[in-house]
Amino acid sequence: MSSVDAFEEFVNTLKVEGAKRYHTNHPFHKLMIEGKLTPGQIRAWVINRFYYQRILPMKDAAIISNCPFIEVRRVWIKRIINHDGENGGLEKWLRLGEAVGLTREDLFAGNVLPGVKLACDAYLEFCKNSSWLEGVASSLTTLVAPDAHRDRLEYMKRYYPWIKPEGFEYFQWRLIEGPEDSRMALNILRDYIKTDEDRERCLKALIFKTTVLWNILDALYMEYIVRGRKDYE
Amino acid sequence: MSSVDAFEEFVNTLKVEGAKRYHTNHPFHKLMIEGKLTPGQIRAWVINRFYYQRILPMKDAAIISNCPFIEVRRVWIKRIINHDGENGGLEKWLRLGEAVGLTREDLFAGNVLPGVKLACDAYLEFCKNSSWLEGVASSLTTLVAPDAHRDRLEYMKRYYPWIKPEGFEYFQWRLIEGPEDSRMALNILRDYIKTDEDRERCLKALIFKTTVLWNILDALYMEYIVRGRKDYE
Repeated sequence: MSSVDAFEEFVNTLKVEGAKRYHTNHPFHKLMIEGKLTPGQIRAWVINRFYYQRILPMKDAAIISNCPFIEVRRVWIKRIINHDGENGGLEKWLRLGEAVGLTREDLFAGNVLPGVKLACDAYLEFCKNSSWLEGVASSLTTLVAPDAHRDRLEYMKRYYPWIKPEGFEYFQWRLIEGPEDSRMALNILRDYIKTDEDRERCLKALIFKTTVLWNILDALYMEYIVRGRKDYE
Repeated sequence: MSSVDAFEEFVNTLKVEGAKRYHTNHPFHKLMIEGKLTPGQIRAWVINRFYYQRILPMKDAAIISNCPFIEVRRVWIKRIINHDGENGGLEKWLRLGEAVGLTREDLFAGNVLPGVKLACDAYLEFCKNSSWLEGVASSLTTLVAPDAHRDRLEYMKRYYPWIKPEGFEYFQWRLIEGPEDSRMALNILRDYIKTDEDRERCLKALIFKTTVLWNILDALYMEYIVRGRKDYE
């Protein structure tokens, strides 16, 4: 088997193992796309997930801080700018917040569930303490994310007509930017993965990342569905 | 005393304590600006100091990875680009390397003294493991650096005419960029230092950084002056 085939097979493994554990399978996501969440539950999701969004530029900087290769750093810095830039991911998520009736202050106040904070902080620590290559691999939930964004776009528009349309800009942007991000990360893995052990660690990094996303929804489900908290109704 | 005065006084303390320990006082630097280094000793300095240059964008990324404030990250990311960009600090230092008769491969091979590696790696670890505010403060050797760059420009041109003039572009650039970097860092400290303890830790961070730069020259002096190593003659 040629090394091109071997890499394609590895990418396929990442997709299969990622999709299997991706948070689109989570009961909270299912309730969301079935139109069964209350406005307060949607707001709780937006506010808690913003904590994750805020971690993203920091974890990308952690990856750069571990990377001795200028050609990788020059590419990866775009990820920080994509989130922190003037019309970047954080700004777009803040607009989603406003579209569901929250203020920017609500989102920045960081009043998030302890389980959400724990999961997101663990992701940042993972990127600080693992190799930069594992950090890059952990970003590859982008391989399976477009379906989730497409679902959110379609079903949130259909079932939650009270959400102002400008709120959906984030998901539209991710539909375009996500595949671009995947290509960037895969090009790097293709060049820098040398051994079976590298491949194994990269796969584990991606699986770890799916756990982060899954745990965020666990905390939300437990508090806002099972325990019925209503602070954003 | 107003808080403006207090901040000015703090900046003055940083300058005084920084200048006192700055590596322009080091015997290796003195030999350099007195024209007493051999071509091999100049080359050894260029190649070893390149390891420090390569650490800079990584330590700036480490500062961003620790910083939860988007407005600080948006400013500080320029530091990474200043070094890693197409015509950035690393590229300019590589040209200095060529101007003293080294190849780019020589510089990237990273064949540096263990003491230099230890000091530079310690700086990166410091920025990873300290608060982002201390990381920012540690950059403020830029407050006293312009004199060093001016000296290098003047005396290296005078005493080492064998160095090709395009090699001096790095120092010319730092003369302009350094004061800009200082302003950036001081504006951040002004906004985010809240307590005497913050001030104390920021001063200690700057003093730590002077030790990093000093240690680099210790290792060079011991190996290339005292022990008389001649691998780059």
